[in-house]
Parts: sequence; structure tokens; C-alpha cells
Amino acid sequence: MSNSIDDLLRQLREFRDERDWAQFHNSKYLALALSIEAAELNELFLWKKPEEANPERVQEELADVLLYAFQLADKYGWDILQLMQNKIEQNAEKYPADKARGSAQKYDELL
Amino acid sequence: MSNSIDDLLRQLREFRDERDWAQFHNSKYLALALSIEAAELNELFLWKKPEEANPERVQEELADVLLYAFQLADKYGWDILQLMQNKIEQNAEKYPADKARGSAQKYDELL
Amino acid sequence: MSNSIDDLLRQLREFRDERDWAQFHNSKYLALALSIEAAELNELFLWKKPEEANPERVQEELADVLLYAFQLADKYGWDILQLMQNKIEQNAEKYPADKARGSAQKYDELL
Amino acid sequence: MSNSIDDLLRQLREFRDERDWAQFHNSKYLALALSIEAAELNELFLWKKPEEANPERVQEELADVLLYAFQLADKYGWDILQLMQNKIEQNAEKYPADKARGSAQKYDELL
Repeated sequence: MSNSIDDLLRQLREFRDERDWAQFHNSKYLALALSIEAAELNELFLWKKPEEANPERVQEELADVLLYAFQLADKYGWDILQLMQNKIEQNAEKYPADKARGSAQKYDELL
Repeated sequence: MSNSIDDLLRQLREFRDERDWAQFHNSKYLALALSIEAAELNELFLWKKPEEANPERVQEELADVLLYAFQLADKYGWDILQLMQNKIEQNAEKYPADKARGSAQKYDELL
Repeated sequence: MSNSIDDLLRQLREFRDERDWAQFHNSKYLALALSIEAAELNELFLWKKPEEANPERVQEELADVLLYAFQLADKYGWDILQLMQNKIEQNAEKYPADKARGSAQKYDELL
Repeated sequence: MSNSIDDLLRQLREFRDERDWAQFHNSKYLALALSIEAAELNELFLWKKPEEANPERVQEELADVLLYAFQLADKYGWDILQLMQNKIEQNAEKYPADKARGSAQKYDELL
């Protein structure tokens, strides 16, 4: 059982090393693997309404995305919660609440 | 400062609600947004060697992927560490260490 | 002006060689570039209804996808219309009209 | 046999209508389907060198990308060769041969 992000990262490194997969896991290939899993996640929604996607399958593909994302952060030695925290603050500047309210525009198209 | 996944999810909900963005954030659209961020992450490696990508930009795009992944899990009410843990166990069955060692084959192509 | 696929491929090779880009254009990198352009295409529809996407921008991103797709086929020396023709015939077998009518299911889920 | 782009588009419309799939084929969903096929194409290169990808499978996935790209252009009523031609000219301005020679930089990073 993993009670923390650190536990989980430890398991992922062990999983990788038992299979001698570190040779494949450079940052570029991890990013590519992540985007392929992201597409498999999207395929579950293709031609469908959001609620028609199979939740069990969504959970599996989302997990694959997260596993590669965590491994990529780990590859660079980054703290996962910290990097997310930093981006939330950056996004708050790009999308001020009063300008972005109810708008689907990109930050460079906000009035 | 977010000291935990729960803190971070709380911030993300607040960020979304201050901007009245819940109307856009159905599961299908979150998955699509995630895959677009995944592509932006990959673009940083395009035509390049892994070590030539700008780490600061990689961190930002990876953060965007993670933020959408967390929001999608939150949309379904899933526990993020638990769903990753489940998938690690599932992958361990699909890729037995002795068969998968040093191989880049997909599980259905392992000898 | 390109009046044919062959004219267009000739221009693309010339464009590439004037910039000394053949060194980057292996099949793997062309496929990656293609998928990044596909994501940029999708971004134009993100959070929006189909008709809300800017047609001019859609045309540009779709063109980028097609340009990389043509270059990838050209890299392998394939005839573009022929490979599309082959796939239409393959799809016709996977999706028999009477079974697939009105259904968004994947071929392996058709009743 | 399709001797031309027009023949091919005619077949694609017929294929779609025999299956009553026009209801699914709005521009947004076609773009999404295209990007999923693009990811399947990339998966064939994942963890591998370019020459290790199975050419037969590459051809199939590339064909799927092209089929959706053609259908999306057809949805908007665009001339496929013309839109590609326009983009080549646009790219020639963004990437002047003398500045872009031997460089993998994006146009906004060219010196």
C-alpha cells in the first residue's frame, strides 16, 4: 500500500529496475509515453458524451498518465506537489479571476 | 503552500470556481485539455535530444498535465494515490519481471 | 502552384533541403511532429462547440498535420492515395455496414 | 480504385453514410479522432529507434490519420492540395531558408 507520493515513487523505481527499463526511460521517451496514454484516455470519450465513457477504463488510463508524469518528475528530481503549486500561482497571474470569469479564451486572448 | 494532495485539490477547486469554469470542466474536456498539455510537453523535446529540452519549460508543461490529471480524478471523486497503486499492481501482472526484462515490447507481444 | 500530390511532395523536399532539415526528419520525429500539430488542431476546439473554432486557424493546423503526414509517407516511399485506399478496404471489413450502422462502438465491441 | 483525391473523398462519404456515422462526424470529433490515430502512430515508435517500427503498422496508422484529415477538410469544403499549398507558402515566410538552415528552433526562436 502506498500512503504517500514518496512510497509510490519508490515502487515505480523498483518496478522499473526489476525489468531493466531505465535504459528506455529518458525524459523524452517518458514524455512520449505519457502523451500516448493521454490519447488512450481520450479514446474512451471519442464519439461519446462525457458520462458515456466507462469509468473503470478511464481510471486505468488516467493512472497510466499519472504514472508516467510522476516518473518524469522523478527523473528530473522534482518535488511533484511543489511544481504543481508553482504552476497554480503562475496560472493565477495569467488568468486573473475578474478577467477570466466564465470565459474559455486562452490567456493571450482575454480582453 | 500545499503540503498534501488534498490541499492542492482544494486550491484547484477554488481556482476553478473563482473563474466560473466548472461549466467547461466535464470529464471529456478535462481529458482533452490534458492531452493538449501533453503535446506541449512533447514539443519541448521535438527534433532534440532529451537533455536539450529546457528544464524550466518541461516543468511547466508537466505541471499543466498533472493539474488536469488531478482535476479529472477529482471530478470522479477518486483517490489519486489509490488509483495509481491499483494500476501498478495491474501492470505487474501484465509485465512479469522475468518476461519483460530489458524488453520494450508491449505486454501482448512478450514471448 | 501545386496541381498534384507529386508537385506538392516535390516542393516539400525542396523546402526541407533548402533548410538542411533532412537530418531531423526521420520517421519517428516526423510522427512526433505530426501528433503535436494534431494537438494544436484540437486546441482550437477546446472548451468550445465545433462551430466556435476559428476556421482560418483550423485550416492552418490541419495543413500542418497533412504536411507532416505527406512527408512521412514520402519518407517510406509510399503512394499516398494507395495507402488510404488500402485502409478504407481494411476498415470496410472491420466495420461491416449492417453491424456498425449508427454505432460509435469500436470494431472489437460491435455486436 | 481511387485515382484521385476526389474519388477518395467520394468513397469516404459513402462509407460514412452507409454506416449512418455523419451524426458523429462533426469537426471537433474528427479532430479528436485524428489526434488519437496520431498517438497510435507514435506508439509504434515508442521506446524504439525509427527503423525498428513495423512499416506495415506504420502505414495503417498513418492512413487512419490521413483519412480523418481528409474528412475534416471535406467537412469544411476545403480543397486539400490548396490548403497545403497555402501553408507551405506561410511556412516559407516563418522559416526563411538562410535563417532556419540546420536549425531545429521554432520560428519565434530563430536568431
